[in-house]
Amino acid sequence: MDKEISQAVIRRMPRYYRYLGELIDAGVERISSGDLSSRMNVTASQIRQDLNNFGGFGQQGYGYNVKYLYDEIGKILGLGEKHSIIIIGAGNLGQALANYVEFEKFGFAITALFDINPALKGRQVRGIAIHMIEELEAFTKEHPVDIAALTLPKSKAEAMASQLAGLGITAIWNFAHVDLDLAGQNVLVENVHLSDSLMQLSYNIAKDKPRHAAPQ
Amino acid sequence: MDKEISQAVIRRMPRYYRYLGELIDAGVERISSGDLSSRMNVTASQIRQDLNNFGGFGQQGYGYNVKYLYDEIGKILGLGEKHSIIIIGAGNLGQALANYVEFEKFGFAITALFDINPALKGRQVRGIAIHMIEELEAFTKEHPVDIAALTLPKSKAEAMASQLAGLGITAIWNFAHVDLDLAGQNVLVENVHLSDSLMQLSYNIAKDKPRHAAPQ
Repeated sequence: MDKEISQAVIRRMPRYYRYLGELIDAGVERISSGDLSSRMNVTASQIRQDLNNFGGFGQQGYGYNVKYLYDEIGKILGLGEKHSIIIIGAGNLGQALANYVEFEKFGFAITALFDINPALKGRQVRGIAIHMIEELEAFTKEHPVDIAALTLPKSKAEAMASQLAGLGITAIWNFAHVDLDLAGQNVLVENVHLSDSLMQLSYNIAKDKPRHAAPQ
Repeated sequence: MDKEISQAVIRRMPRYYRYLGELIDAGVERISSGDLSSRMNVTASQIRQDLNNFGGFGQQGYGYNVKYLYDEIGKILGLGEKHSIIIIGAGNLGQALANYVEFEKFGFAITALFDINPALKGRQVRGIAIHMIEELEAFTKEHPVDIAALTLPKSKAEAMASQLAGLGITAIWNFAHVDLDLAGQNVLVENVHLSDSLMQLSYNIAKDKPRHAAPQ
């Protein structure tokens, strides 16, 4: 792919992938962009435009081959390759990620957790060992690491991200409440801000509320 | 606010709010859209456009009053009011959410967790009780619930969401790997798909990889 595709389009791709996966599970082999559109609650023209960024995949009036489209979107999303993930921070969130088997279905294998809490030393989550953070450098020398997930307090995330970059890790999945920006270090960062989505929900709650409640 | 504001604008608001909070912590009282723009890595015109949706808040050549803008965006996001949240599913993710003190800073108070696992009965997370799911109906009759967070397997999320809607809960923060759609039941849903962001990261990893590795 030589053309730069907008991140807005990319952000919609996992959703297509998820819906197509459900169609496969339901035994559907072929679907029109109109049917896909009403299921996904986006316009058919949006679907066609999005997929045209990657060359189309459909034929006018004939619809999409569900399995083919699913596989192609998977390739676009880089899911054809296995990715190994380490998790820095083995608290509840880190353990929740390690327990989430769904990720493996998509080729993401969690290979280790790291923490500073000595009480966690030697423990495992779903068979995945929790290491002490001192072992991080040795671990990265012996095992390939594609992605590091950070489930750390905000105050520690920035320094840890730099350390990871120094160890040659080039992709960070950041759950700390700060926008990590390591562009200068050639590291990809995906920030997940749970409170942002909560605020979006509370915006919609406030918006729907009548300004002046009717007297009872 | 009578004008409908696009969800894309709303999605950016929590990020403004986060950055402005950091500026306040750093003692900054006033900032130009240019300075805010370079910190946030968005264009100054985007910032002005976004804020103009709500009436502006700044004066040409004079910049924004940080604290005022922070408070106003907080109001827009509905953060002026307290929200009580219950968490359905007290596994690692549910417990991680209950442990996340940051939410309280924004007025979101987690008041209870619910689970089906009898081993969790009577336990607490940060002082918040884990109830058995049978107690849900009684609880919602006695306590106001603004938002229910679902940290359940996909297979159980849909039925639980309907049950919650039946109990009069009108906002769901959904972590199950499915797009809940309860529009017919007049329930607001915010879906959080952790694997979507992981896929976006893997797309960017794949994109940056050279197609043909140079010989070593």
